[in-house]
Amino acid sequence: MIKISRSNQILIPTFRLAYSTLAKMKKNKQSGPAGDKASAKELNPPPPYIQERLNLWNKLKSQYDAELNSKPEKPIKVTLPDGKIVEAIAWKTTAYDIARGISQGLADNAVISKVNSILWDLDRPLEDDCKLELLKFDDPEAQAVFWHSTAHILGEAMERVYGGCLCYGPPIESGFYYDMYLDDKGVSQSDFPALESVMKSIVKDKQPFERLEIKKIDTPTTTVYRCGPLIDLCRGPHSSSTYWEGKADAESLQRIYGISFPDTKQLKEWQQFQEEAAKRDHRKIGREQELFFFHELSPGSCFFQPRGAHLYNTLINFIKKQYRKRGFQEVVTPNIFNAKLWQTSGHWAHYAFNIRQPYPLMERITVEVSRLWSFAQKRTVRALTGLTRVRRFQQDDAHIFCAPEQIKQEISSCLDFLQNVYSIFGFTFNLVLSTRPEKFLGDIEMWNDAEKALADSLTDFGQPWKLNPGDGAFYGPKIDITIQDALRRLHQCATIQLDFQLPIRFNLSYVSESGDKKRPVIIHRAILGSVERMIAILTESYAGKWPFWLSPRQVMVIPVGPTYDEYADNVKEKLFEAGFMSEVDTDAGDTMNKKIRNAQLAQFNFILVVGGEGT
Amino acid sequence: MIKISRSNQILIPTFRLAYSTLAKMKKNKQSGPAGDKASAKELNPPPPYIQERLNLWNKLKSQYDAELNSKPEKPIKVTLPDGKIVEAIAWKTTAYDIARGISQGLADNAVISKVNSILWDLDRPLEDDCKLELLKFDDPEAQAVFWHSTAHILGEAMERVYGGCLCYGPPIESGFYYDMYLDDKGVSQSDFPALESVMKSIVKDKQPFERLEIKKIDTPTTTVYRCGPLIDLCRGPHSSSTYWEGKADAESLQRIYGISFPDTKQLKEWQQFQEEAAKRDHRKIGREQELFFFHELSPGSCFFQPRGAHLYNTLINFIKKQYRKRGFQEVVTPNIFNAKLWQTSGHWAHYAFNIRQPYPLMERITVEVSRLWSFAQKRTVRALTGLTRVRRFQQDDAHIFCAPEQIKQEISSCLDFLQNVYSIFGFTFNLVLSTRPEKFLGDIEMWNDAEKALADSLTDFGQPWKLNPGDGAFYGPKIDITIQDALRRLHQCATIQLDFQLPIRFNLSYVSESGDKKRPVIIHRAILGSVERMIAILTESYAGKWPFWLSPRQVMVIPVGPTYDEYADNVKEKLFEAGFMSEVDTDAGDTMNKKIRNAQLAQFNFILVVGGEGT
Repeated sequence: MIKISRSNQILIPTFRLAYSTLAKMKKNKQSGPAGDKASAKELNPPPPYIQERLNLWNKLKSQYDAELNSKPEKPIKVTLPDGKIVEAIAWKTTAYDIARGISQGLADNAVISKVNSILWDLDRPLEDDCKLELLKFDDPEAQAVFWHSTAHILGEAMERVYGGCLCYGPPIESGFYYDMYLDDKGVSQSDFPALESVMKSIVKDKQPFERLEIKKIDTPTTTVYRCGPLIDLCRGPHSSSTYWEGKADAESLQRIYGISFPDTKQLKEWQQFQEEAAKRDHRKIGREQELFFFHELSPGSCFFQPRGAHLYNTLINFIKKQYRKRGFQEVVTPNIFNAKLWQTSGHWAHYAFNIRQPYPLMERITVEVSRLWSFAQKRTVRALTGLTRVRRFQQDDAHIFCAPEQIKQEISSCLDFLQNVYSIFGFTFNLVLSTRPEKFLGDIEMWNDAEKALADSLTDFGQPWKLNPGDGAFYGPKIDITIQDALRRLHQCATIQLDFQLPIRFNLSYVSESGDKKRPVIIHRAILGSVERMIAILTESYAGKWPFWLSPRQVMVIPVGPTYDEYADNVKEKLFEAGFMSEVDTDAGDTMNKKIRNAQLAQFNFILVVGGEGT
Repeated sequence: MIKISRSNQILIPTFRLAYSTLAKMKKNKQSGPAGDKASAKELNPPPPYIQERLNLWNKLKSQYDAELNSKPEKPIKVTLPDGKIVEAIAWKTTAYDIARGISQGLADNAVISKVNSILWDLDRPLEDDCKLELLKFDDPEAQAVFWHSTAHILGEAMERVYGGCLCYGPPIESGFYYDMYLDDKGVSQSDFPALESVMKSIVKDKQPFERLEIKKIDTPTTTVYRCGPLIDLCRGPHSSSTYWEGKADAESLQRIYGISFPDTKQLKEWQQFQEEAAKRDHRKIGREQELFFFHELSPGSCFFQPRGAHLYNTLINFIKKQYRKRGFQEVVTPNIFNAKLWQTSGHWAHYAFNIRQPYPLMERITVEVSRLWSFAQKRTVRALTGLTRVRRFQQDDAHIFCAPEQIKQEISSCLDFLQNVYSIFGFTFNLVLSTRPEKFLGDIEMWNDAEKALADSLTDFGQPWKLNPGDGAFYGPKIDITIQDALRRLHQCATIQLDFQLPIRFNLSYVSESGDKKRPVIIHRAILGSVERMIAILTESYAGKWPFWLSPRQVMVIPVGPTYDEYADNVKEKLFEAGFMSEVDTDAGDTMNKKIRNAQLAQFNFILVVGGEGT
């Protein structure tokens, strides 16, 4: 079981737990649950609140069941995604019943259903004519449901082992976590065997996920879920509750992370993926290849060593050339502005400024109707993780000032630009158009025209794209671009953001061909996004095997023997003068073969062995 | 008169006054003293403190004269710079007497003398055997004395016109100023005719500069000067008093600037130079050529427009190539460091940090025994003037980590590097070696060896150099490099600074050939210095006529007629693609000749007129 509400359905999750941070998970895995001496055991007797809560559940459940039983059973029509219509009975037939009617395999693999586009427990009776979709684990929404369900199991185990007070247990990008308030105890890795043992017994018990609704006049319906002794207020299978989240940093909360999969094979694949990702970790490769490092003397700011600086500059010079080729003009502007600028731009009202954040976010503002770009240096204050979350970064910020009728053409060249650069890096990418939100500023006609221009550009571009209705910024629609690296991981780097508001706030105008003064549109654009982050992504995607043009180690010259040391050095010098990153290995302590091996391990693109014949 | 202490000698200063800032001086000059309606007049009766002060002077002066008269007159020997020895009488013969003994021309042109290397009033009696030098106006020390003397005249005039309280009237780089405390009045340009009229009458009166000394037990001798009714405590002809300076910004102080010369021809030359400098002012050219501008939204930080950004990048790319060629490796490091770094480096103890200065000065620290450099971004808090005094700038900071015995060779290559780059810019430069100060850290043997290495490198380099004994930093000797631009103005950009202390503070070591662990020396080095400031200097030195390689306007393509517009555009595009800064002028409203004229005025290096024959 362990799939929500499917009492007879077994989709056993296999799982891994981790304490506090995902980074520590590997350590836990290596030592293994069996290797740790279990210091925690299931509480006996169990915490008293479990029985009190069960009593309340039983009372409410019988009320709810009575209500459900009073519902009139009637024939309804259920439309499947392929258009096929299935007959069913309201308040009786479940999505699971329908899945099994199609095939047992489908029923076995379905993780959750969607009724009229709303996530719906598989064993919850349908209520009226509806459209039904069945989602498997490969669907991100199904994954979230699956992980949320496993989080419930983890929560139940945490209650039974620690007896603390559960706070919030959401699914995350990979897996889930549960926070628990513990009065005087801390969680330790050595507790994991006990926790996993309780979780396994819960899975073995096939405890059903039961559901009830509490309705009160003038308040929204509250949904309550029960899995074994754990009863949780919960909006349903796709939890998006955010209460508690703010307290996640409180010191007295203990967080346990976990991940689970429908079968062991998937867990193993995931573990292998984690190992591969760990091998490619940019912090590891950065250290090993002497590219960059971080130091506590400047947390969140990277130190690029000479070879890393070469990478950094090569990347910037590459993108600069690309910009120039496309008619962009570079500007260099200050890093720090008077607050008045941010008051005019509207940033002031949208960001909280305090002593810990002395500088506003940096934006480059220029006022010509043309393409302009610059490297903006930005500072952010947030959790810092290697090069992907830094305090200081450079960004290739471009602003296109164009007439509204030029939007389509400009967006098309943006997309072309993106594809050009990303294909050089070996990235594919996904495109999502976010349209007018409920709270928007500006003329609705302008929005409609612009959204149509964006959609037309996307369609002309020829690659599939998705719509994310209502997710645009209040000042304009946008296209989010997510790149996929060699490990098929997703990263959002580029954005194409229309802005109708800044031209108004800065009172920008241009003279149209007919001689009228008109208001331009600004397109905010970045291709690399943060240069630092792009270096991290490229490091991991290439796994440190740099393509020649970017490589900080292009050529290693190795003499066949010491008599050719001077010649080898000359060759290296010639290559260096020609602009290449060339090195020479004349270490008297190593054999030629050892030098070749070293150069291979160091990922040199070319190894030139030089010397006379027969030496 | 108006030369200190030379009652019968006439070196009449011609002068110009300016109110508050030198920038306003020109305005004053244009309207001219005669054109302004004088609103101020000499006070009648004069301020009472003048008579009180004179009474005190007369009393002290008679005491001092009595003391002087009691001194025994005896024959002494005065050695001139050419080794010639002149006979003189102690407490009677003056430097002026000796000058006149050589030639009347020398006596007329001498501004001040130096006795045993100490500045000495021309009419002050010599006291014993001594070395004597006679300085003319072309000597910077003589200029300072001359301007200080004119400042006394200005001060006297200010007292007689305003009756306020004089504060501080030092010579400055060009001219002098006097600050006066005025209770309830302000100084206006329209007062200048009155002031100049009083100054002229002082000059006409040939008031002598008289001098006396006041001696008290246990305190240093106080020197007092009198010029007409103005009596001033003053260390002597070369005033370097700094009391009052701190109050110069106080709102109630009124500052009047001035400049003076021994003759009108020199004043005219100076005025022409000012006009030429104003034409070349980088802020003016920056605006006119659309290179860069400043904005109150970010005071002291420059906005580089596309053509200015091209200049900026070209300059940086040029110097980067030069560095690479010479074996330097670039690093990219954070802008902000934890205070611990500055505590270790010793900066913390030497700079005051307060809330208005949240970031310490930026330095890039790297720890390899090799040549390293990076562009450091620095912030400074001081008076801001165009690009020469900015809040944010980039600097080509290099650190050479070398063994002590490599100092000479490394300094030689630094000097070679400097000459190479500066000759490309058309600059000549002066070299000054500053040696061990009284308060120094480290081993005296190391200092001696290093100073010898520096001196040897300088001598080998072949260009004349000067010694500035005792002016080195406490952590090492240095070479200051002052460049001379096309207007023969001096700018200090580069420095070569030895540092014995940082390697100790950061516990740096290298393994020598003999296998011992040794301490390296750090050489701090910059060629461009601040890139922003170098752009200002280059702008003014080239007067906006950029050499082709740096030029933001390399080629203008002009069609002979509209039928060739498309062809002209193609030519421009081809040149652009080849990497040049090319533009095309297809403005239908201008004739070909007008376009050529425009392109000439805009300082295009090449103007390509394209089209068929006979069009």
